Amino acid sequence: MAPVKKSILDRLNAGEVVIGDGGFVFALEKRGYVKAGPWTPEAAVTHPEAVRQLHREFLRAGSNVMQTFTFYASDDKLENRGQNLKITGAKINEAACDLAREVANEGDAMVAGGVCQTPSYLSCKSEADVKAIFKKQLDVFIKKNVDFLIAEYFEHVEEAVWAVEVLKTSGKPVAASMCIGPEGDMHGVSPGDCAVRLVNAGAQIVGVNCHFDPMTCVKAVEMMKVGVEKAGLKAHYMAQPLAYHTPDCSCQGFIDLPEFPFALEPRILTRWDMHEYAREAYKVGIRFIGGCCGYEAYHIRAIAEELAPERGIVAPGSEKHGMWGAGLEMHTKPWVRARARRDYWENLAPASGRPKCPSMSTPEGWGVTKGHADLLQHKEATSSQEMKHVLEMQKKTKSSA
Amino acid sequence: MAPVKKSILDRLNAGEVVIGDGGFVFALEKRGYVKAGPWTPEAAVTHPEAVRQLHREFLRAGSNVMQTFTFYASDDKLENRGQNLKITGAKINEAACDLAREVANEGDAMVAGGVCQTPSYLSCKSEADVKAIFKKQLDVFIKKNVDFLIAEYFEHVEEAVWAVEVLKTSGKPVAASMCIGPEGDMHGVSPGDCAVRLVNAGAQIVGVNCHFDPMTCVKAVEMMKVGVEKAGLKAHYMAQPLAYHTPDCSCQGFIDLPEFPFALEPRILTRWDMHEYAREAYKVGIRFIGGCCGYEAYHIRAIAEELAPERGIVAPGSEKHGMWGAGLEMHTKPWVRARARRDYWENLAPASGRPKCPSMSTPEGWGVTKGHADLLQHKEATSSQEMKHVLEMQKKTKSSA
Amino acid sequence: MAPVKKSILDRLNAGEVVIGDGGFVFALEKRGYVKAGPWTPEAAVTHPEAVRQLHREFLRAGSNVMQTFTFYASDDKLENRGQNLKITGAKINEAACDLAREVANEGDAMVAGGVCQTPSYLSCKSEADVKAIFKKQLDVFIKKNVDFLIAEYFEHVEEAVWAVEVLKTSGKPVAASMCIGPEGDMHGVSPGDCAVRLVNAGAQIVGVNCHFDPMTCVKAVEMMKVGVEKAGLKAHYMAQPLAYHTPDCSCQGFIDLPEFPFALEPRILTRWDMHEYAREAYKVGIRFIGGCCGYEAYHIRAIAEELAPERGIVAPGSEKHGMWGAGLEMHTKPWVRARARRDYWENLAPASGRPKCPSMSTPEGWGVTKGHADLLQHKEATSSQEMKHVLEMQKKTKSSA
Amino acid sequence: MAPVKKSILDRLNAGEVVIGDGGFVFALEKRGYVKAGPWTPEAAVTHPEAVRQLHREFLRAGSNVMQTFTFYASDDKLENRGQNLKITGAKINEAACDLAREVANEGDAMVAGGVCQTPSYLSCKSEADVKAIFKKQLDVFIKKNVDFLIAEYFEHVEEAVWAVEVLKTSGKPVAASMCIGPEGDMHGVSPGDCAVRLVNAGAQIVGVNCHFDPMTCVKAVEMMKVGVEKAGLKAHYMAQPLAYHTPDCSCQGFIDLPEFPFALEPRILTRWDMHEYAREAYKVGIRFIGGCCGYEAYHIRAIAEELAPERGIVAPGSEKHGMWGAGLEMHTKPWVRARARRDYWENLAPASGRPKCPSMSTPEGWGVTKGHADLLQHKEATSSQEMKHVLEMQKKTKSSA
Repeated sequence: MAPVKKSILDRLNAGEVVIGDGGFVFALEKRGYVKAGPWTPEAAVTHPEAVRQLHREFLRAGSNVMQTFTFYASDDKLENRGQNLKITGAKINEAACDLAREVANEGDAMVAGGVCQTPSYLSCKSEADVKAIFKKQLDVFIKKNVDFLIAEYFEHVEEAVWAVEVLKTSGKPVAASMCIGPEGDMHGVSPGDCAVRLVNAGAQIVGVNCHFDPMTCVKAVEMMKVGVEKAGLKAHYMAQPLAYHTPDCSCQGFIDLPEFPFALEPRILTRWDMHEYAREAYKVGIRFIGGCCGYEAYHIRAIAEELAPERGIVAPGSEKHGMWGAGLEMHTKPWVRARARRDYWENLAPASGRPKCPSMSTPEGWGVTKGHADLLQHKEATSSQEMKHVLEMQKKTKSSA
Repeated sequence: MAPVKKSILDRLNAGEVVIGDGGFVFALEKRGYVKAGPWTPEAAVTHPEAVRQLHREFLRAGSNVMQTFTFYASDDKLENRGQNLKITGAKINEAACDLAREVANEGDAMVAGGVCQTPSYLSCKSEADVKAIFKKQLDVFIKKNVDFLIAEYFEHVEEAVWAVEVLKTSGKPVAASMCIGPEGDMHGVSPGDCAVRLVNAGAQIVGVNCHFDPMTCVKAVEMMKVGVEKAGLKAHYMAQPLAYHTPDCSCQGFIDLPEFPFALEPRILTRWDMHEYAREAYKVGIRFIGGCCGYEAYHIRAIAEELAPERGIVAPGSEKHGMWGAGLEMHTKPWVRARARRDYWENLAPASGRPKCPSMSTPEGWGVTKGHADLLQHKEATSSQEMKHVLEMQKKTKSSA
Repeated sequence: MAPVKKSILDRLNAGEVVIGDGGFVFALEKRGYVKAGPWTPEAAVTHPEAVRQLHREFLRAGSNVMQTFTFYASDDKLENRGQNLKITGAKINEAACDLAREVANEGDAMVAGGVCQTPSYLSCKSEADVKAIFKKQLDVFIKKNVDFLIAEYFEHVEEAVWAVEVLKTSGKPVAASMCIGPEGDMHGVSPGDCAVRLVNAGAQIVGVNCHFDPMTCVKAVEMMKVGVEKAGLKAHYMAQPLAYHTPDCSCQGFIDLPEFPFALEPRILTRWDMHEYAREAYKVGIRFIGGCCGYEAYHIRAIAEELAPERGIVAPGSEKHGMWGAGLEMHTKPWVRARARRDYWENLAPASGRPKCPSMSTPEGWGVTKGHADLLQHKEATSSQEMKHVLEMQKKTKSSA
Repeated sequence: MAPVKKSILDRLNAGEVVIGDGGFVFALEKRGYVKAGPWTPEAAVTHPEAVRQLHREFLRAGSNVMQTFTFYASDDKLENRGQNLKITGAKINEAACDLAREVANEGDAMVAGGVCQTPSYLSCKSEADVKAIFKKQLDVFIKKNVDFLIAEYFEHVEEAVWAVEVLKTSGKPVAASMCIGPEGDMHGVSPGDCAVRLVNAGAQIVGVNCHFDPMTCVKAVEMMKVGVEKAGLKAHYMAQPLAYHTPDCSCQGFIDLPEFPFALEPRILTRWDMHEYAREAYKVGIRFIGGCCGYEAYHIRAIAEELAPERGIVAPGSEKHGMWGAGLEMHTKPWVRARARRDYWENLAPASGRPKCPSMSTPEGWGVTKGHADLLQHKEATSSQEMKHVLEMQKKTKSSA
């Protein structure tokens, strides 16, 4: 067992930078353990070795937080997404907590239990119904004694506030992170107003995750900070953005890009893009800095390397990486050795190798949100009639663009 | 223990498609276990859990071959690249064989022991010296009883022939794979002539790996096939290309691209690009189809899915992937559900999200090859004087471009 | 002599669409009659045949307005730009009026006398001094009896108001057009506020020209319209944008793009882009629709063709152009004949043929405006010391970007 | 009348560089005097002022050759393209000769009478029939006493040879220029073999024009030169390429690009691209250097400026252009003044401002050539049934790509 660790709030209050991990859903989809579409985390039970290894990679890269692999691990979602509860939500949540704890104890990391938006909310269930879902997950987190809690990936501030209210009952520190950009939540509530409502609900840390690229997320969190300070409140700030460039997104983020989720490769950030993100996030005052979909360990390591001077800590994984590509000094070819320097990588505008592809897309998205019939969730896979309907909707939206 | 398996030659002679794995060096660099520059595989000893997990992902994706993680695992390379033989080449080779065997036995896979080009050859050592290096690795492969052998990643056919000659002494099947494109080896020997020399040296399988994108590699292997058939010889064919688009490469491949190795992200192939590759490779007559640098499990799975009709086999990992994105039928948003169809993904030209980046680069590379002073390898990291020299060389080359 | 023509205000009050011409400075630079840098119009005197021909091309394409080629034809500018008044401003203005009138009388067009921003204003001369410059040009316009007046290409609303005040003394209709985008003038005055001040100064038509691409200009004019209507005022609206795509511009427009003025080619709009512009401008309520730098006759013709249904007029030049490419029905190759249809051209995303170029640039511009020492104008060409200074400024600005 | 001029052969034999003009068809289409599709030059009769002005612009830019505006001015083409011979070919040819001569005499230029490929050849008419068409045009050229003759824009070497044979009967110098690239003519005859046949037929100057960008054309002419020299023959060489970047073309050139002819704008070469072309053409030994479709006067001037040191001549139009942008030293904004230098423009990779467009296209073209039913020419515009046929053909070709 590891010695008693400082809490997340101790660290942030002391001005430390806390480095988050990357998203598990996308990383494990690539590795073959998560199915795109349902996006559910049953692999915590069925393939613990894969989940454990991913935790270890992030730990080694410098992460101070092991988030439990419990995304969409609520029974309503599992049922909706065809898991038929062969493996219950509770089982998944428990297994995920154990894996996170096991790896956290191998290094200097905390365990964070996470809940996220529910199909019940989208389908207009009552506040009590939705809160009951969060409560069920929270019960596991309390039993497994996670270090703190994160309500993340919320598109509607109303549901995020409900989640924070439930999580606060535990007495543990609560972070609240929405998947919104500078345009605000799906009902148009600005980042600043979202943050104020979350802080008022009891969140000690607020920020955004997923849906947008790092620079966009930093901008949104900065707007949150301005809002919170204007309201005379106090909070810590977090950002866990995508590792995809998304300059062409509208309010709903990368889900609306035509490339989502199976052709996002050309948008993946380089490690040097991560240096820029880490620096900018730090400048803006964000101190809980991590990632989400698209991240691999080397992205997190780049954040740790950029902020090594401020933190005085080098990530274990940096034994396999020279700062700014210094390892290339040992490459066979001399013209590759010539790339072992910061200004080379900082100034490079990397080519896509795809001359027949554009650099920006037109996002889809039909402007429908919570309450719209097309968003009511059901258990069945899409029927061919429904598919016909969505294809027609799509055509109509395009021609009016 | 698994039942007696068919050999690679049994399979290929029977017309089966054998699916290879992806490259370990790049995948483990991203995960934090390999250092770019030296590119050596000591993690087989120091972090077996990471290597084992990567083997498992490829197995699950459909790979029939577990290549031992022994790239650059020759003592001359290890010494040259700063490992100081704290961990000997023999130890690394042994550990790598054990890991490959362990995972191969969990499914329907063979173990292939691999050797690759040596710094000794680049530094103009004698045939006997170079062969001794291969022999040392081979001794381990024989002791560990691998199923077959691959001489891969050779830029010069002369060295590749030497490797084949050594490997043939084992009596095991031998595959020979060069890292060349349609322009041939570094001394200008055409793919057809390279293949003939390799087959004459005893290789039963010939092909190319690394350095170029799938379509370019398929083209090069097709040229090999034409050469072999013209010479009245017989062989099986293999391709294990990059998962990076490289239309802008010259003869030495992606190493010369300015993005190598730390900004190749925008070039990563999608799973749909892999479908095209698998189909094209199959059409051309290639039956050992795998990958190299840049591959992750989902790329291999895409190959397996494309050729599922021919093979009658579905990869275990496909439980987490609907053909042509069918899993999206269970996505929350209806406009994403509308993407659950083949023609959507086949016709998409994915954007890079990088409007300030070009789509093609100008490769570097100074036209120097084996024998040139700048390519003599040494143990020390590049000195600042050497770095000055290479930066000057680089400037000169650019201004004359 | 032509019959008495309706005035510009008669036309606009009657709800007619008035089609402007394109810019002369850029078009004649390409043809060899204007020097980039000084941008002065002495060719009206020295090469009248070239100026006359360009007028004719626009007339033939459908222009209802022949603007006198008097851009930067004020004595202070001519002196500043090395013309040494060998040819006086008065002479240029007179010759330009005669050419415009000659061609206007060949068709259904009005002559508009134009003044634009002065180096005197940038150099902080007094209101009286600046107004005297406009008065001098106006005297010629009155003598030559132009049909109406345009104060165009102003970056500062203050100077534009001064110009309107001078032009109003003539009793002729006055249009005022600023070279600003949605961000407003160089001192941050919004388009809406600029428009209100111009209308209050007596301009009957307000809008924007130059500096931005059509869609950006339409947006800025729409903001002007909102401002004017909010203030309870009335006006007509005009747009004469660039024929260059400028999505990457900041407040000062295309001058700050690194491609200005000698590498803008890849940004040139197609005729189909012009159809979109004309439609959008019409929708927004703009009725004086023309162009500026980058326009050639076929761009103006495209505007006329798009609005032919509303106007019931076909441009003479359309005898040489089938709507939506119908002329291709007579092409030799059948696959080119297949392009003779609207949906083909509307949906085409044209390639640049430049795979090593990006699609967007980073604008320069040092944030300096009227009053800054670096903007004080002088007669001498840049000295080598000054050039050193600007290169240093540039470096500094880039590294802080 | 001007003094007796040196002939084209005197000049080339003396090692002089002769600068050609640009293409008239595309330039006058933009100005409203030529219809895309038929591409016929009746404007020589109907709008002489427009044709004369374009000649003057090229003369002023440095052209030493005024080509008669007689492209497609053969009766068979005029009839086929709907002109119904209201204006006979003879009349057009005569008017074009007069215009070229008038302007040539204003400066140091020769008049070249031009013939090009005929619909009769495509429709498989006899050698006698096709030659009769060339003879008819030649009769006018002899009557009008042009200085030399150019057989240009031939896709099939057989027809080009026939043209040369007819033109040779005049005793005037004959240049032969094909619209082919490095892949050779439409029947696969290599550039080298085409050139040998043309020289053997009597052409003193051989080269290529149209269809490909400058660098591709230079490469093709270099192949011609190698072929001619290998055959022990002698010739002078010419290039008159497009002013469009066409790296993505197949053997039939820019006609097959989806952007042809109405969306080629993003491909237009800058003046700096022209400097590169002029230098490269000169290096390869080409001494008759001009342009074709897409050229405007400033492109020709750039050629003249690049070769000014070799020629010792400055074009008249250069009074309006400082070498390498020197005129910008007199720009208002200091950051634009900073662009008045060679290395700035040489190193700029200009952006397209079109982030939703790719940089390369896939050419169409159905591989049909002379003799194929789809290429038989007729007088009628495409019927709706024919259009249906071509759209089906197009679909078929795309899906098999």
